[in-house]
Amino acid sequence: MRKAVYPGSFDPVTLGHLDIIERSARMSDWLIIGVLNNNSKTPLFSVEERVNMLKKMTSHLPNVEVKSFGGLLIDFMRANGADVVIRGLRAITDFEYELQMAQTNRVMAPEIDTVFLTTNLKYSYLSSSIVKEIAYYDGDISEFLAPEIAECVREKMSERKKNG
Amino acid sequence: MRKAVYPGSFDPVTLGHLDIIERSARMSDWLIIGVLNNNSKTPLFSVEERVNMLKKMTSHLPNVEVKSFGGLLIDFMRANGADVVIRGLRAITDFEYELQMAQTNRVMAPEIDTVFLTTNLKYSYLSSSIVKEIAYYDGDISEFLAPEIAECVREKMSERKKNG
Amino acid sequence: MRKAVYPGSFDPVTLGHLDIIERSARMSDWLIIGVLNNNSKTPLFSVEERVNMLKKMTSHLPNVEVKSFGGLLIDFMRANGADVVIRGLRAITDFEYELQMAQTNRVMAPEIDTVFLTTNLKYSYLSSSIVKEIAYYDGDISEFLAPEIAECVREKMSERKKNG
Amino acid sequence: MRKAVYPGSFDPVTLGHLDIIERSARMSDWLIIGVLNNNSKTPLFSVEERVNMLKKMTSHLPNVEVKSFGGLLIDFMRANGADVVIRGLRAITDFEYELQMAQTNRVMAPEIDTVFLTTNLKYSYLSSSIVKEIAYYDGDISEFLAPEIAECVREKMSERKKNG
Amino acid sequence: MRKAVYPGSFDPVTLGHLDIIERSARMSDWLIIGVLNNNSKTPLFSVEERVNMLKKMTSHLPNVEVKSFGGLLIDFMRANGADVVIRGLRAITDFEYELQMAQTNRVMAPEIDTVFLTTNLKYSYLSSSIVKEIAYYDGDISEFLAPEIAECVREKMSERKKNG
Amino acid sequence: MRKAVYPGSFDPVTLGHLDIIERSARMSDWLIIGVLNNNSKTPLFSVEERVNMLKKMTSHLPNVEVKSFGGLLIDFMRANGADVVIRGLRAITDFEYELQMAQTNRVMAPEIDTVFLTTNLKYSYLSSSIVKEIAYYDGDISEFLAPEIAECVREKMSERKKNG
Repeated sequence: MRKAVYPGSFDPVTLGHLDIIERSARMSDWLIIGVLNNNSKTPLFSVEERVNMLKKMTSHLPNVEVKSFGGLLIDFMRANGADVVIRGLRAITDFEYELQMAQTNRVMAPEIDTVFLTTNLKYSYLSSSIVKEIAYYDGDISEFLAPEIAECVREKMSERKKNG
Repeated sequence: MRKAVYPGSFDPVTLGHLDIIERSARMSDWLIIGVLNNNSKTPLFSVEERVNMLKKMTSHLPNVEVKSFGGLLIDFMRANGADVVIRGLRAITDFEYELQMAQTNRVMAPEIDTVFLTTNLKYSYLSSSIVKEIAYYDGDISEFLAPEIAECVREKMSERKKNG
Repeated sequence: MRKAVYPGSFDPVTLGHLDIIERSARMSDWLIIGVLNNNSKTPLFSVEERVNMLKKMTSHLPNVEVKSFGGLLIDFMRANGADVVIRGLRAITDFEYELQMAQTNRVMAPEIDTVFLTTNLKYSYLSSSIVKEIAYYDGDISEFLAPEIAECVREKMSERKKNG
Repeated sequence: MRKAVYPGSFDPVTLGHLDIIERSARMSDWLIIGVLNNNSKTPLFSVEERVNMLKKMTSHLPNVEVKSFGGLLIDFMRANGADVVIRGLRAITDFEYELQMAQTNRVMAPEIDTVFLTTNLKYSYLSSSIVKEIAYYDGDISEFLAPEIAECVREKMSERKKNG
Repeated sequence: MRKAVYPGSFDPVTLGHLDIIERSARMSDWLIIGVLNNNSKTPLFSVEERVNMLKKMTSHLPNVEVKSFGGLLIDFMRANGADVVIRGLRAITDFEYELQMAQTNRVMAPEIDTVFLTTNLKYSYLSSSIVKEIAYYDGDISEFLAPEIAECVREKMSERKKNG
Repeated sequence: MRKAVYPGSFDPVTLGHLDIIERSARMSDWLIIGVLNNNSKTPLFSVEERVNMLKKMTSHLPNVEVKSFGGLLIDFMRANGADVVIRGLRAITDFEYELQMAQTNRVMAPEIDTVFLTTNLKYSYLSSSIVKEIAYYDGDISEFLAPEIAECVREKMSERKKNG
């Protein structure tokens, strides 16, 4: 795959995401991690913070680049000359939604294809929102996140609680 | 089928909906398109606008009527003397929700039955909300909507953006 | 629906099938029950026996006819001037297979449509093969079949065991 | 099962929940019904009202206790010395979410296990939110709830409407 | 749970099965592993061999017993005074079939209930038939089976190949 | 992707397969189509015939090679120095089985990864076995197969019928 994009919210990046990134980087000439700047949701981390966390976690991968984007994925792909979307598949509900997006994108941009990687079994039921819920109640998140990221989540959560 | 109702939000009506309407009209003596007036959601188009768009798109079908309704579907059915609900099936998540509604309605109104038509493959992953998201970012929606409807969506979106 | 076909193996007809038949008959001008004569499987009942059992069970329905067929469903539909296939939906695996058949038929015969009815909750996990397995081990099948049909199944099974 | 917890929102408790409670009580030495106090949602009934309704409905079961909890389920389990979570399974979407929670809990608390009971067919498509929607439009909810609970729901709804 | 049965073919018993057995034994007063003697299939191991392998693998569990059975599960349950069936859930296709069996059994024997445990993630896509296929082609099965069982499978396979 | 393998039975190759092949070839440096020689099934075409059909259909793709294989896919991958498996995804049942194979392969050969492409909507419900069933009853298969392949299937079928 010449130039691929792995899009997502990464709020925060989990060990499951990192597994997909490592494997996609091996298969691609160039991999762009596209961090979605979605105005309609209130993320835990700002898009700049999320880009920075991902840059730190992927600094050992020479062919990986991290960028933020707003708007349509296919516009971001075209602006970057990328032609393959990479998505991780966890479960059925994922699968339905992912198929829907892949097919819609294909109608709108036939030159862009989507490939799916299966999430590592160990992380197959992991999601950023579950991790945030656990962290909110001071649960242990060290099995789900890299140590640096877990630290950031804990700090951000205690900040939030202080500010009410 | 004597008198059938095809209920939905139709915000806006897509080519997938129109395909279901054409096919249902062929199978029914009389078909009522029931446009849901759901107070708890903020639609892109008012219920009157949606009724009018559907009337325009179905004016060539002599046994089709368009009406809005609030409240329970079974009350709307009974008020109109209709005994068959028509629903389009796209994917698994749909399927679950649709079964749930069909079974609940059946307990409450045993004289009313639900039949499902499979969405045309070409439109099988199409939804009104994806179309609105694409239109919001000025993406090309002409593959998903009738030309008149696509025009209405573009106008409405640019209005919205002007008014912030 | 002018003329509909409800195809199946009906080996034997269950209370779930009969529920679908009653409801389809109410919605159709004319309903043909198409009993599949599938050479590659060894049924418990011959196709003639299955046609006769269905005739007995539907004698009170004036617009229902029972016929056997081999070959492709769409050829049977065309030979009988029917344009709607009726299928009962139980669960996910059903759903997948049924969609596959409906879409394939539609490509080959665009004038023929398929509608799905949801199986009555009470019978939603019932299948002819489970009933046969239970009967084979002398289990109680009276909850799943009409009394006459249950009697036929018990006789046939004891015959089979005698002849080894 | 020595000590089990059946957690949920129970807003309100349905006949489907009561079926699971009766069956779980038979299998457990001690069963705690854990009523979730979720700050981020606006329930129809306060957590105290829900606890009281459940106490009334389970007063005939000597080994059942009703308690409210906030925070993480596994913290509630540990505080009560319980080691089995009981969940009812209705349909596919449930199944996915339930698996995700069960696997996440298991990583965080390996000493706690989750068992699933299948919902009685009769109630297999029933949910508290559908019941509330029906009640909101003055539909008949007597098939889904115990008479006392149905009465509470009707009262609460008419209160809500008065207060706008 | 007073007396539970975990039924299956166990041809051969995998690490996934053993995980379910250990967890079920903790939750039950008495656990019977029911080894299905299914005449219509040709197993790799005879029912006696399978019973013996399971006895060896569960000898450290004081409340576990291994027995073979033919015929209907509910007859085996009743003959042994057991009232809970235990099943492991892996994936969607499993889920459908398992629900179907659980609901059918419940109609036939309302006093018997079924509980589901989720398979350990590590073994969540493991099945006896995949293991046999891998072994047939001399693939490495040591990740899927206990060492003693893996040895038995290898021996049996080389026997089979010699005898053609 | 340096060197990828697209494995399958291809009995016969459909337009859906050809779509996956074209798209995979664009993403790979080198693509091997692995035609499975499965002794336990009776294919319509011999493995040599299937390899030849695929060679003809892919002669315009310079980086595509066609080979047959028996035994385990991972052994075939290793013997050819390939590290990515390509699979097409159609529907839920596929999805389950494919995940199972991908996860099993990953445990046995961690250096090999699997990527999934979604089948073109137009071919999303197409399978080789349905095509054969249609051809058996002299149905029209020209929408599903390339003209040369359709011709081969028709010839083979009439041969079979002559020889009984």
